[in-house]
Amino acid sequence: MRPSGRRPDELRPVTLERGVARYAEGSCLVSFGNTKVLCTASLEERGPPWLRGSGRGWVTAEYAMLPRATHERTRREVTSGRPSGRTQEIQRLIGRSLRAVVNLAALGERQVTIDCDVLQADGGTRTASITGAWIALHECFAWMRERSIISVDPMKDHVAAISCGIHAGTPVLDLDYVEDSAAETDANFVITGSGGIVEVQGTAEGKPFTDDELLALLRLAKAGVSELVAKQKAVLAG
Amino acid sequence: MRPSGRRPDELRPVTLERGVARYAEGSCLVSFGNTKVLCTASLEERGPPWLRGSGRGWVTAEYAMLPRATHERTRREVTSGRPSGRTQEIQRLIGRSLRAVVNLAALGERQVTIDCDVLQADGGTRTASITGAWIALHECFAWMRERSIISVDPMKDHVAAISCGIHAGTPVLDLDYVEDSAAETDANFVITGSGGIVEVQGTAEGKPFTDDELLALLRLAKAGVSELVAKQKAVLAG
Amino acid sequence: MRPSGRRPDELRPVTLERGVARYAEGSCLVSFGNTKVLCTASLEERGPPWLRGSGRGWVTAEYAMLPRATHERTRREVTSGRPSGRTQEIQRLIGRSLRAVVNLAALGERQVTIDCDVLQADGGTRTASITGAWIALHECFAWMRERSIISVDPMKDHVAAISCGIHAGTPVLDLDYVEDSAAETDANFVITGSGGIVEVQGTAEGKPFTDDELLALLRLAKAGVSELVAKQKAVLAG
Amino acid sequence: MRPSGRRPDELRPVTLERGVARYAEGSCLVSFGNTKVLCTASLEERGPPWLRGSGRGWVTAEYAMLPRATHERTRREVTSGRPSGRTQEIQRLIGRSLRAVVNLAALGERQVTIDCDVLQADGGTRTASITGAWIALHECFAWMRERSIISVDPMKDHVAAISCGIHAGTPVLDLDYVEDSAAETDANFVITGSGGIVEVQGTAEGKPFTDDELLALLRLAKAGVSELVAKQKAVLAG
Amino acid sequence: MRPSGRRPDELRPVTLERGVARYAEGSCLVSFGNTKVLCTASLEERGPPWLRGSGRGWVTAEYAMLPRATHERTRREVTSGRPSGRTQEIQRLIGRSLRAVVNLAALGERQVTIDCDVLQADGGTRTASITGAWIALHECFAWMRERSIISVDPMKDHVAAISCGIHAGTPVLDLDYVEDSAAETDANFVITGSGGIVEVQGTAEGKPFTDDELLALLRLAKAGVSELVAKQKAVLAG
Amino acid sequence: MRPSGRRPDELRPVTLERGVARYAEGSCLVSFGNTKVLCTASLEERGPPWLRGSGRGWVTAEYAMLPRATHERTRREVTSGRPSGRTQEIQRLIGRSLRAVVNLAALGERQVTIDCDVLQADGGTRTASITGAWIALHECFAWMRERSIISVDPMKDHVAAISCGIHAGTPVLDLDYVEDSAAETDANFVITGSGGIVEVQGTAEGKPFTDDELLALLRLAKAGVSELVAKQKAVLAG
Repeated sequence: MRPSGRRPDELRPVTLERGVARYAEGSCLVSFGNTKVLCTASLEERGPPWLRGSGRGWVTAEYAMLPRATHERTRREVTSGRPSGRTQEIQRLIGRSLRAVVNLAALGERQVTIDCDVLQADGGTRTASITGAWIALHECFAWMRERSIISVDPMKDHVAAISCGIHAGTPVLDLDYVEDSAAETDANFVITGSGGIVEVQGTAEGKPFTDDELLALLRLAKAGVSELVAKQKAVLAG
Repeated sequence: MRPSGRRPDELRPVTLERGVARYAEGSCLVSFGNTKVLCTASLEERGPPWLRGSGRGWVTAEYAMLPRATHERTRREVTSGRPSGRTQEIQRLIGRSLRAVVNLAALGERQVTIDCDVLQADGGTRTASITGAWIALHECFAWMRERSIISVDPMKDHVAAISCGIHAGTPVLDLDYVEDSAAETDANFVITGSGGIVEVQGTAEGKPFTDDELLALLRLAKAGVSELVAKQKAVLAG
Repeated sequence: MRPSGRRPDELRPVTLERGVARYAEGSCLVSFGNTKVLCTASLEERGPPWLRGSGRGWVTAEYAMLPRATHERTRREVTSGRPSGRTQEIQRLIGRSLRAVVNLAALGERQVTIDCDVLQADGGTRTASITGAWIALHECFAWMRERSIISVDPMKDHVAAISCGIHAGTPVLDLDYVEDSAAETDANFVITGSGGIVEVQGTAEGKPFTDDELLALLRLAKAGVSELVAKQKAVLAG
Repeated sequence: MRPSGRRPDELRPVTLERGVARYAEGSCLVSFGNTKVLCTASLEERGPPWLRGSGRGWVTAEYAMLPRATHERTRREVTSGRPSGRTQEIQRLIGRSLRAVVNLAALGERQVTIDCDVLQADGGTRTASITGAWIALHECFAWMRERSIISVDPMKDHVAAISCGIHAGTPVLDLDYVEDSAAETDANFVITGSGGIVEVQGTAEGKPFTDDELLALLRLAKAGVSELVAKQKAVLAG
Repeated sequence: MRPSGRRPDELRPVTLERGVARYAEGSCLVSFGNTKVLCTASLEERGPPWLRGSGRGWVTAEYAMLPRATHERTRREVTSGRPSGRTQEIQRLIGRSLRAVVNLAALGERQVTIDCDVLQADGGTRTASITGAWIALHECFAWMRERSIISVDPMKDHVAAISCGIHAGTPVLDLDYVEDSAAETDANFVITGSGGIVEVQGTAEGKPFTDDELLALLRLAKAGVSELVAKQKAVLAG
Repeated sequence: MRPSGRRPDELRPVTLERGVARYAEGSCLVSFGNTKVLCTASLEERGPPWLRGSGRGWVTAEYAMLPRATHERTRREVTSGRPSGRTQEIQRLIGRSLRAVVNLAALGERQVTIDCDVLQADGGTRTASITGAWIALHECFAWMRERSIISVDPMKDHVAAISCGIHAGTPVLDLDYVEDSAAETDANFVITGSGGIVEVQGTAEGKPFTDDELLALLRLAKAGVSELVAKQKAVLAG
């Protein structure tokens, strides 16, 4: 039995609310249970220097947590003068995940920055961020097409992410903070709408895991991402 | 005529929503029109080192804006490795304003940190922050009394803040971003529930202002703060 | 009775010595009693990037204290790697105050940097800085006109600054360190030669202050600045 | 055909030279082809603060590259004032990988720091680092037992790491720099002597990869790590 | 002929004015021609951590230049967040030079910090700093003896410093800025009252120098320091 | 008798191994006894900004120690965010020493960066660095001539460096760590192949030294550098 009472393959309630930031070209407030992330997409008409003259654009991401998103207050990273290794790892992951489904040539020499700011953190903030960021980016591309800034939609596919782990010996989907703290193995999967794997990151927190356990986690994740992609489609249809 | 169509002495619609952050000891989502600030109060059982042994506590504040709170995306301060002068000025102002109405001895050797994170910025973020922070701090003190951490309420009075300015020659209340950018004079007032002035900061952006203009702004601010304090009372009563 | 034996509306002895820095385009050693600040003006033929092509120039200021300007030695700010919030607040105030009386178009696309370095600190360093900086800037403009770099004097008016406060219940002018530490309310006023207010910053250190007290402080400040402007005129005439 | 002429499942020549650093408690110069990493183990008699009183020790790692380890000179990280996100990601990975095979209670309240300094970089620096770091840590534990600092060997198992990738459509083992730059998918596996998975990190650089591709990479990695562990055993026996 | 018209072995006019900083335990305004340095001594009742329990004290120094001490304005070091290599080199030199003539055991577990702030720079700022710092330190020790903080004078000897160089083929004493910029070889000597060498730093700016040239510079320096020590004695006697 | 059993004028065993870094334009692994430094030369086709248009190039150096080069582990400088004063002093010394024997006009508007990374430290790391750096730079110039990037060899002479000191009252050559820690006076000499002095830095660690002692150290150093230059010639010939 999971602490939350969920079945092993059961996601937390997931909501995706779009259009929540008045000034951004795209935005989404995503929640995976008590984890809440505000994702905004900001278009900049100038791409990064290393793509100048290439005709291709860039999608990048930044990630942060409000100090009291967490159970105990966390010091702001500006206080130590630099983003932590964890923050950098996550924002590079979000950026890579989104770029995997974007046609950067169709974007032209522009940059879209996705900001994922965690308002409340109960585990799975990076996977919620990727899932919500996709909506914000989609909105941004729609905004650009409406204004004829681009003619072709650069978005090639959906992408979403989910965590899995081995908790009390059982592979389970979408760990909340309590489960995450106690999991023997923790894995994050980023998967496209058509089922391709963009990223897998699995870590044994306690004892090493087996090939079979890795496969069980992969199966859980693929089912979980299917549900998330269905929700992304629903919110766009809505 | 003001750009927003408001009368010179008219506040924007103000809302104060309490209890919005699941893990914080107190919280308030405040909006002054399109300006939205999430205020949380975090209790720490240890005061700052310089008060050790004094029997007195401390209330401090931190302030930040989400990158896309603004019309154009703003770089995160962590990128430059330090809070800007403006940020430091604002967070010191919020802290001073709150301490002016708190009995620090009644708090005991503890620290409450108020985080004011601007989710959307349309002018007046510092005055909205102070007004909402008071609610978050009030909630935190209530939380502490419920748990018998303190026996006496350390809160001595209300405090709220409002901006005024001279726009197109006319003294007006509660400037939004468009007015603020065009104002000849910009002033912020922090005033208690009983009408005492805690802080006045007036700056001529264009030509210097007169004694009479300063008085006109003060009168507008006092009326504005009365309305804000009435709203604080309503939300507590609610 | 004030600790220094001065009357409530009495300035400390003020001296303004110009031409004290051999290499600077303008300079002034200002003293307000035991507070001594060396102000230099440095002309740079290139304005800040954001004014490029505008035809307008810029006046900016930097402020620092020597480590042993104070009663106890203060750590150099370079040790912590950044100017403190207080330093940034003061240098922005000095810059704003000077720009309020300068015709930036007449200056052309050039920048003048005023450095205010406190050699000895006994309260009122920011107001002494503004008052002395005006002389250094005036000298710099004279230096430029002698060399036909500019044809019109960009200086539109005098500007000077003074602190006031409520000390032992009485409004008093030009607080020294001892009074400043004990004042219930502390206010700084920046006022032009023609009596316009450029900046007012009033803070209740203890209990909030009333409208009448604010007015009393304003009256003291206006009289004090008149004296300071008279001294500026005397030193130019001399 | 691979650029290097190797078979898909063929490692580069691997050497592990121990005892190379005169002052360190353990050391190993590891080479995977032209990639060369100097690994040293430094014992500190004091563990990290968060383990004080727990009776348990800690193993941590730092990683850096000499500026001219690479084809083009790379700026030293001290120049930008902080380790890059990549560096932090790698050093956390090395630390986690080693701790997965160490009995931290048997180590006692001490810390061992493994420094992995890349002298020459031709791809696979993180996997070479982990493989060599294990030897340095093993030497350090032997040094401690010889001096009766510990009585039980804290090392529970071997651990080694290898990269795999999909290059020109074929899953291949141990990518060098040329292959790594061109790989569609890049994965790193950390695996123990008994075949348990400690960490898997797979990233689609171009198009997403399939479940079958992930499995093929896992099979390659397990065979590769078996060879590496055999080499570790040989060097200890030698 | 030297640009200044001085003889090869002629110092610039040197003045040492003591007691110039109201709050410091010792102070001296030193000038070597147009070079002016304000030296203050600050006593701290706590020595550095590494001397705790040793019964010995410490003398350290900090050095900085006001931005417009120089012909062109120099950026403040706080702007780049760290003291430059040159600044660190100089402040370590001043500290070492003073400690060479101080009995640190007689000082007790206390620290004296000498701040050398260059008000105007025309070459030789480090040698003027050392020469003036000795006076400030001497004053501080006198201040301590008057208050019976120490019973024995920790000062063992005088110390002073002077630059020499080879300018237009001729060895010359006490280079000003113009000579320094053109010198082929530049050397600084720190020498005690009894003629012992504390530090010699000689650098060929253009072509390497010979043994004979080094000796010629040493002879000039010893004569120059004799004059400086005589001036130190005169100011103490005065 | 010296701790190492060497005669006063005896160098430690010195080796210079060239061509040790596969990707660098020049390289040398130098050892002075147990001190080992890896020197690489990196050519950059762009000189520093301040030489743009001058037709002249630049040679610069960076210096660092691996954390466990030393008897006790030393923290990486990136951890404190900046190179220490000692590091900056050494890298500026290496750069100056090399530029003293390079015809910067013959190099053209290019920069060569010499990286000196200390793999093992037993005293004399800066002198070993200069001696080895000369070989790396020589190799780089040869590499450039082979590719006809330059036609004239920019190297004008050899340069090498050695430390001396007064140990137990006796002037001795090439101090190792044990001697260096106990020396009363410590001096470093940088001398060209033709015997010109490029740099002399002598410091009294304990009591001041005499003119005769300085001369004795100079004589030792000149003989020592002659041996080092002979070794440089042998390695080029070999």
